[in-house]
Amino acid sequence: MLSDHFQAVRQRSLQLAAPLSNEDCCAQSMPDASPVKWHLAHTTWFFETFILEARESNFTPFHTAFRVLFNSYYNGVGPKHPRAQRGLLTRPSLDEVWAYRLDVDARMLRLLDAGSPDAALAELVTLGLQHEQQHQELMLTDVKHLLAHNPIAPRYDGEGMRLEAAPLPLQFLEFDGGLVEIGHDGRGFAFDNELPRHRSYVAPFALASRLVTNGEYLAFIEAGGYRDAALWLAEGWDKVASGELAAPLYWRRMDGGGWAEFTLHGELPLDPARPVTHLSLYEADAYARWAGARLPTEAEWECAARLAGIEAGGAHPGAALAAGLTQMFGACWQWTSSSYAPYAGYAPAPGAIGEYNGKFMINQYVLRGSSCATPGGHARASYRNFFPAGTRWQFTGIRLAR
Amino acid sequence: MLSDHFQAVRQRSLQLAAPLSNEDCCAQSMPDASPVKWHLAHTTWFFETFILEARESNFTPFHTAFRVLFNSYYNGVGPKHPRAQRGLLTRPSLDEVWAYRLDVDARMLRLLDAGSPDAALAELVTLGLQHEQQHQELMLTDVKHLLAHNPIAPRYDGEGMRLEAAPLPLQFLEFDGGLVEIGHDGRGFAFDNELPRHRSYVAPFALASRLVTNGEYLAFIEAGGYRDAALWLAEGWDKVASGELAAPLYWRRMDGGGWAEFTLHGELPLDPARPVTHLSLYEADAYARWAGARLPTEAEWECAARLAGIEAGGAHPGAALAAGLTQMFGACWQWTSSSYAPYAGYAPAPGAIGEYNGKFMINQYVLRGSSCATPGGHARASYRNFFPAGTRWQFTGIRLAR
Amino acid sequence: MLSDHFQAVRQRSLQLAAPLSNEDCCAQSMPDASPVKWHLAHTTWFFETFILEARESNFTPFHTAFRVLFNSYYNGVGPKHPRAQRGLLTRPSLDEVWAYRLDVDARMLRLLDAGSPDAALAELVTLGLQHEQQHQELMLTDVKHLLAHNPIAPRYDGEGMRLEAAPLPLQFLEFDGGLVEIGHDGRGFAFDNELPRHRSYVAPFALASRLVTNGEYLAFIEAGGYRDAALWLAEGWDKVASGELAAPLYWRRMDGGGWAEFTLHGELPLDPARPVTHLSLYEADAYARWAGARLPTEAEWECAARLAGIEAGGAHPGAALAAGLTQMFGACWQWTSSSYAPYAGYAPAPGAIGEYNGKFMINQYVLRGSSCATPGGHARASYRNFFPAGTRWQFTGIRLAR
Amino acid sequence: MLSDHFQAVRQRSLQLAAPLSNEDCCAQSMPDASPVKWHLAHTTWFFETFILEARESNFTPFHTAFRVLFNSYYNGVGPKHPRAQRGLLTRPSLDEVWAYRLDVDARMLRLLDAGSPDAALAELVTLGLQHEQQHQELMLTDVKHLLAHNPIAPRYDGEGMRLEAAPLPLQFLEFDGGLVEIGHDGRGFAFDNELPRHRSYVAPFALASRLVTNGEYLAFIEAGGYRDAALWLAEGWDKVASGELAAPLYWRRMDGGGWAEFTLHGELPLDPARPVTHLSLYEADAYARWAGARLPTEAEWECAARLAGIEAGGAHPGAALAAGLTQMFGACWQWTSSSYAPYAGYAPAPGAIGEYNGKFMINQYVLRGSSCATPGGHARASYRNFFPAGTRWQFTGIRLAR
Repeated sequence: MLSDHFQAVRQRSLQLAAPLSNEDCCAQSMPDASPVKWHLAHTTWFFETFILEARESNFTPFHTAFRVLFNSYYNGVGPKHPRAQRGLLTRPSLDEVWAYRLDVDARMLRLLDAGSPDAALAELVTLGLQHEQQHQELMLTDVKHLLAHNPIAPRYDGEGMRLEAAPLPLQFLEFDGGLVEIGHDGRGFAFDNELPRHRSYVAPFALASRLVTNGEYLAFIEAGGYRDAALWLAEGWDKVASGELAAPLYWRRMDGGGWAEFTLHGELPLDPARPVTHLSLYEADAYARWAGARLPTEAEWECAARLAGIEAGGAHPGAALAAGLTQMFGACWQWTSSSYAPYAGYAPAPGAIGEYNGKFMINQYVLRGSSCATPGGHARASYRNFFPAGTRWQFTGIRLAR
Repeated sequence: MLSDHFQAVRQRSLQLAAPLSNEDCCAQSMPDASPVKWHLAHTTWFFETFILEARESNFTPFHTAFRVLFNSYYNGVGPKHPRAQRGLLTRPSLDEVWAYRLDVDARMLRLLDAGSPDAALAELVTLGLQHEQQHQELMLTDVKHLLAHNPIAPRYDGEGMRLEAAPLPLQFLEFDGGLVEIGHDGRGFAFDNELPRHRSYVAPFALASRLVTNGEYLAFIEAGGYRDAALWLAEGWDKVASGELAAPLYWRRMDGGGWAEFTLHGELPLDPARPVTHLSLYEADAYARWAGARLPTEAEWECAARLAGIEAGGAHPGAALAAGLTQMFGACWQWTSSSYAPYAGYAPAPGAIGEYNGKFMINQYVLRGSSCATPGGHARASYRNFFPAGTRWQFTGIRLAR
Repeated sequence: MLSDHFQAVRQRSLQLAAPLSNEDCCAQSMPDASPVKWHLAHTTWFFETFILEARESNFTPFHTAFRVLFNSYYNGVGPKHPRAQRGLLTRPSLDEVWAYRLDVDARMLRLLDAGSPDAALAELVTLGLQHEQQHQELMLTDVKHLLAHNPIAPRYDGEGMRLEAAPLPLQFLEFDGGLVEIGHDGRGFAFDNELPRHRSYVAPFALASRLVTNGEYLAFIEAGGYRDAALWLAEGWDKVASGELAAPLYWRRMDGGGWAEFTLHGELPLDPARPVTHLSLYEADAYARWAGARLPTEAEWECAARLAGIEAGGAHPGAALAAGLTQMFGACWQWTSSSYAPYAGYAPAPGAIGEYNGKFMINQYVLRGSSCATPGGHARASYRNFFPAGTRWQFTGIRLAR
Repeated sequence: MLSDHFQAVRQRSLQLAAPLSNEDCCAQSMPDASPVKWHLAHTTWFFETFILEARESNFTPFHTAFRVLFNSYYNGVGPKHPRAQRGLLTRPSLDEVWAYRLDVDARMLRLLDAGSPDAALAELVTLGLQHEQQHQELMLTDVKHLLAHNPIAPRYDGEGMRLEAAPLPLQFLEFDGGLVEIGHDGRGFAFDNELPRHRSYVAPFALASRLVTNGEYLAFIEAGGYRDAALWLAEGWDKVASGELAAPLYWRRMDGGGWAEFTLHGELPLDPARPVTHLSLYEADAYARWAGARLPTEAEWECAARLAGIEAGGAHPGAALAAGLTQMFGACWQWTSSSYAPYAGYAPAPGAIGEYNGKFMINQYVLRGSSCATPGGHARASYRNFFPAGTRWQFTGIRLAR
């Protein structure tokens, strides 16, 4: 039932915010990361603006100012509060945002329970829930970024994290490629950027059986990987030379030697068995070159992923313990060498809702799979995540290809 | 009794924070403005670091991380948390900072009540309380700056603010000047920058009987004051030309015409009778030139101020209702044309405590008097406040001279 | 004969510099554009560093400092003079750079005339000449950018430029696509980024018969193209909103109405028949969306280009006067929607010479064809030019696809 | 005779440019420094705009564009070419600027020789010549800054520079101070900022007999002067911490140890006997604090300077070889602790010419004396030079006081 699913997804956002204080939910550590309170409000704004406003006969906004305050980037809806100032919105309070959620939820449920929802409504509600799931992942990565700026290194998740057993050696699995169909097959939900399904020629290739581990990446660092310009894209080397890139984002050299990693469980000694995460495309690409490999294209990745199972998540990516093609989902988003571009024949939806994907198809690179922070039921083989090449605060990782 | 005074001043900080939520106390709207929580902690840190640490036999810090987190700028004490990141300190929570205050207050009172405090201790405690009073003023101006960034325009003080009656016409009062003594006379507390008392020659001058009002400043705007380069210092004109300066900081043109002003009582129609406030030295100087006058030097101001009474404050400056020399204190800090420089013979205190004033004596200008936000008992004729010429978030105003 | 070709290409650089003064050759208008003198020296440095140094038995550099001064971006060769400071190199003088060229030319000719050059030498010399031809195009676009900053609007080419006759209406020509071979076919020279030739699937498509004209682009502007966010990529709209993009780079609104365009022939009234040029990928993409079309992929472009003739250049692109597929070469470089990425199986050359292309394959977009400023003999169907999406100082234009 | 003086000063500018190439005269190394060609044209523009335009009956400008191109900062005259783009003006050529000078000189001499000039004309011509002398000093300091950016380290003056003999030990000479008259006494020319002469009270003080030498400043560096925050103004320490300040501007550590200094005679081993030069107010102030002294106020300096002789200049400051109060003039400008502010009663001239001084009286500090680069006849005891505290490309030095 759609209304059950609605309630489950909406409930999940509250659970994610539960370990956080009002102050934790209000602060913003960089323009790219939003406060948790803002995520909670913006996902609600989506339902209010795109569904209730059109469907309620005597629609009254919960608060007139919210239309501007919680608009992310929809020019078609009107003006937006400046992104970099989201952390200054100490009002409305978190309590008021809870009230906003309750109000919109009640009205949405009234709409959904008023009879079997028509196809257009069901489609919009599903889009709104998928949208909220994307923000659930951002809630975790954004608050991790915030907490990492605090010298006290607070824990989001009070439970500890055990050291994992060593994974199996990395193997390259062979794939035939050929003239293949790429894109969503029409069963279940997909974002517009996964469409249309279309033909693409893929030469034979090999893909690594698992992600690169912390231990393997440490070997790259110790071999001078960050000191050899020949391994790097020119833009990446500029960032290395300026000191912006020197190790994955949350790694810290410990005073006595060795490395620690800041996680949602707090700062812990680096676990060599777990996958390396929080690195830029520049670093993923340099590692691959050093390892005599390369990053996959998104078409290659999708060919292979049809065979892979969806694995469970958590607050930090786990080690690869099985044989075969593992960690395609549920550990780290995997950088590809493919820039984010429209598929041949791509057409965005009309109106403001069409601003969802297409207008961002420039200077970004596609990541495939899903991460430990991706909500259950949100991952699929045709899913296209995308970020600029320098992005590190997401759970990004390295899948090698040849 | 010093311990009574200690309790009164410390209590006043809590009262100032009372109308604010945890989120309001945590956010930071610009690097120059600190979160209220940070002010509450830093003023406590001052007592812990400069008094308890030296005086308690078995001193243990309340929290080891606080020494760095709540150090403002004392290099002699060690490293500092980056100023621009104070708003990211969602932990410690406001509750923990309350606990920190209670703990330090209890230990301070134990020290003060253990017998009559020696002169050095009394002096340091007094310095700490004067320091806290300075931060009490900043708590109000910093939170005003934060709330002004919120499109909802929240009120700090829920009470309204009435329109004032028109003040008496501005008059210029004549002063003889001559070879005068400038600086603190040694009765009561003074900061080191008010010392030593020294001789200075002041030519005869005239000083305005009151501050420039909103109504008068509006006439300057309407006469094209912000469009005539000949009125401005070159640096100021650059800021006008780039759009950075176009009206006092918290003035907004209303949709239907006319002006509103954001105050701690919320956004209100501009009151022509009240003094214009929240403007830069550039604007004060341009207005004075337009009015055929100039800004006073700090020596001129101090000569005149010896005759003036100390007036009461509030959440916004009130109009000048009496005759004679008014509004020298309790309304707006008054820009002078004097750069902030050491008095002849100035010597800072030894050690970290000596970093209080002297190292800031560059590229700043002296403001004299006090503002509506200055705590009672903190103002005096020899007091030297100082800010860079572009500063606008303090309660600054214009006193003309000739 | 290779030595004849060497002399012809080297001579061409001098001819391009002939209309310029010593000062014109020394100045640098932005970090991306280099002084003409620097181009003249750097192309010489290429032969000295990669050929003479390895081949001359008792090699002595012409000037020891030149190895650093005229290194563009080859980390393998050693340190580089900062790019943004090339315009401060008033020494060596232009005369000294002429002497440098004469000396290296003489030594190169001695090497080439000493017997039939071996294949490796012939390949390096050819690479050096192709490299110099690329810089010949940059000499024109860089000096155009410099002269355009001068309010006097100096002419590079003293001859006038006549208004062109109206071109034929733009038609869409249909192509079958299919599983095609893309990349250089091995006949004649190619850069490494054109290799290896590989299979790609291209769906049926249509390509415009000619480039978009100034007149057509003006209609886009007058229809509010720069005011409608829905037409733009998000990054492009940010630049429109900030005022960075408002018309093609060298267009100026004339005082009495209408538009002028700065050209190498000076500032002239806009010619509606000539192709629009000097615009970013953002603008090309927005225009295409407004026109109900899109930009081609580089594979589509290459499929079609095999049928096109190479047209002649000049100091400004001419109008399309013939029927059929025109202006593929010799008018404007054509933005594609393809990001600059390695072809499947791409491998750069070993050593410093391998830094030529591969390390720039990030955050750039492919342009195909050639421009009026491209030297004769330098264009081919497989040629891949590339620039960041915001680049405007090259002769860029718009080819529509569907 | 005024016309003789006119010719002599104008001729001097040409002599200063003689050792430079056209390219040297065109380039600009930072926004604060202008090309020599621009100085040659701007000083000519001053005579054309402020004198010929008003005095010639049928005035025709030499070139209509020059009114904008060579306006420095006079808003009253109209728009200005952007300061940071002066180096892009490759046209007009240096030859055309010579022609501009010849034309204006001829017209000026016709005016001056047409009969005895009236007082207003004589005053304006004198102002124009004093203005040109200021730019003569800037021509040297600006071209020095440019040449210092060239790794080849070219010489402006081909002659060598000998090591100087050790100066006498630095002594502090006592002065009585008292109620003194400060400002120009009316004999000969003065800028408006030296007026009006007025009374000021100066407490007794002592002034160093000579400037601080390179050798003495080296001792400060070696004693850790750039590592001890307690010695620095807060703003200065920020620049030290960021690496912006680490030694005087043109000092370089040599590969084998020791220091070299870039001079107009090329790069030479540091001469310990010559005065330290090219340092900021921050460095001068920190050195003084380290040395147990302070910088003088401008009133103190002027009191003392009335007794001092004017010494000769050169391309680099020489050592102090005499006894008594030396190097007040002709070696280095001396930082004072006085901010640049109007004297009591200061009134700028009416009209655009009044923009000369007053509008810069903010966030700058007064330097007194003159430097080796100051033209003969331009120095006097009441002269007030002024620059921001971070300025280093002028010949600045340290005079201690107590």
